[in-house]
Amino acid sequence: MRKLSEASSKLSSEFELIARLTAGIRVSRRTILGVGDDCAIVSRPRGQVLFTIDSLVENVHFDLRWGSPQALGARALTVNLSDIAAMGGRPRACVVNLGVREGITSRKLERIYSGLRDAAREASTDIVGGNVTRARELSITIALVGEAGRGVMRRDAARPGDEIFVTGTLGDAALGWRILAGKLEARGNTKKNRAAEKYLVERFLRPHARLYAGQRLAALRSAPAAIDVSDGLIQDLGHILERSGVGAEIDALRIPISPAYRALMGDDLVHALTGGEDYELIFCVKPGRAESELSRRLGVGVRRIGKIVRGRRVDVIGAGAPIDGGWDQLRSRG
Amino acid sequence: MRKLSEASSKLSSEFELIARLTAGIRVSRRTILGVGDDCAIVSRPRGQVLFTIDSLVENVHFDLRWGSPQALGARALTVNLSDIAAMGGRPRACVVNLGVREGITSRKLERIYSGLRDAAREASTDIVGGNVTRARELSITIALVGEAGRGVMRRDAARPGDEIFVTGTLGDAALGWRILAGKLEARGNTKKNRAAEKYLVERFLRPHARLYAGQRLAALRSAPAAIDVSDGLIQDLGHILERSGVGAEIDALRIPISPAYRALMGDDLVHALTGGEDYELIFCVKPGRAESELSRRLGVGVRRIGKIVRGRRVDVIGAGAPIDGGWDQLRSRG
Repeated sequence: MRKLSEASSKLSSEFELIARLTAGIRVSRRTILGVGDDCAIVSRPRGQVLFTIDSLVENVHFDLRWGSPQALGARALTVNLSDIAAMGGRPRACVVNLGVREGITSRKLERIYSGLRDAAREASTDIVGGNVTRARELSITIALVGEAGRGVMRRDAARPGDEIFVTGTLGDAALGWRILAGKLEARGNTKKNRAAEKYLVERFLRPHARLYAGQRLAALRSAPAAIDVSDGLIQDLGHILERSGVGAEIDALRIPISPAYRALMGDDLVHALTGGEDYELIFCVKPGRAESELSRRLGVGVRRIGKIVRGRRVDVIGAGAPIDGGWDQLRSRG
Repeated sequence: MRKLSEASSKLSSEFELIARLTAGIRVSRRTILGVGDDCAIVSRPRGQVLFTIDSLVENVHFDLRWGSPQALGARALTVNLSDIAAMGGRPRACVVNLGVREGITSRKLERIYSGLRDAAREASTDIVGGNVTRARELSITIALVGEAGRGVMRRDAARPGDEIFVTGTLGDAALGWRILAGKLEARGNTKKNRAAEKYLVERFLRPHARLYAGQRLAALRSAPAAIDVSDGLIQDLGHILERSGVGAEIDALRIPISPAYRALMGDDLVHALTGGEDYELIFCVKPGRAESELSRRLGVGVRRIGKIVRGRRVDVIGAGAPIDGGWDQLRSRG
């Protein structure tokens, strides 16, 4: 089909493409008007509105050869859902911008959208708008709105004395990425090592956002400071410290790592401390809460890894030399 | 500054960049928490929420050599504001994703953001979130939320008998684009022709969203069907017809064109009918409203160009052969 106008921003085929991609999408009753008009219309939210945007770009954040298009679509939503989780909110509606390069088939886009649709349904999130544009690389940019309940978790709420916890385990996704990129391999092709590699790769390709844990945390009498681990424990914790004007003491030996991580890395914590993409939550609560109580409440294992202190620096106890660069960098930012 | 983790999605310098770009941003009291946390927090809106996303991509939608970075930043917001205008809403808050390629200086990004900031302030819209990612080409993707008043203009509301109007003039931006791309030049280097070329180029580089006109239209007792002209009159009107299940009769000789358009194109209406990027409004209202009354009410000149009819086709009266392809294409879509 020929292009009507050379100055036009969209090809007719792009309209047809977005219509096909979004054809099977179901929305909740909150969505008054979904894909297909200039804007979506969403009913008035119950509380304050959370609003965020994030993007996955080919060869920066993903490689199409590494996993299924469905997993990629789901992951593009998850990185956004994780931002809502880190505030303790409920995701409600999203709009999706696809940058599509030559050579990407509509079949591939449909599979990306299929994964995205499934992830959205699982998170009770409506896909209410889509846009497709030509580009030189494939990108998936999603903006998400959510609702905040009575409590909201902010980065600037950490106070000296707070205890620092993390959900799940750290460093798995960074190892998965290194395995996929051919930068890391388990020593010895044993069944156990193959299983460990598979686990770590899955952690990178199919992350989950800690929505329920975030909502439960935000409902605590005093909402914690929190952030999600997208860029690595030290860097992400650094954002809390910077915004709250505090420092931290971290016990490196308490950083939670998975059996698969240990199988490949032994006691080397560098990726657990600085590796990104895990989408676990870091949160700082008033002292006195047991790991077991919090784990039960949040529906996921949590580990106390340190505490918030006065000052502007991070002290890491029990960490070896290789990760010192991380602290230096952080200190210079404090 | 070195990257902490190769699996990390963001460089530290990207955090610093977004901090610098968004440092001067002021927000209204509606914004409880702006740039700098996982999500923005915006106070509960008064009515239904409008939600849209749009993207400008280098070498698809713009060429950095054609205009100032400030104008580009403003235009990136305007294409989104125009979607809110087409529904009759009030824009409230936006989040911005920048894809940044090598060779784009932070000075250039600051100038883009400066134009974006000015355009946002003019439209009473808060910039509440920013994200920067590496990419192979420069792109600006903005998601915008707005509030709807009592009336909302939808594409599916056109009914047989409605009269079709447009605001302003059509085809100017398409000509401006062709001049910038070296595909069109006025015959004769006269002062008048140079002024006409300059006017048309400005119409492309610095479009305005018809926010006030849209809000006034949505407040009519019976809210019109409407759409903004982003892809050309025929294509955009086609979306109204498709969603409303109706046809249209257009009087080509009533299509409003500017003196500058006429200076370059004479009576050739092809770009007025099929050229995009004007960001004027097409709307369909119950019959009986005078152009003069509507122009006064909307604060912009409007022209009645035809009417909605039963059926699924568009008849264009008074149009020459060159644009027949447009109708055929539209018919095949009906």
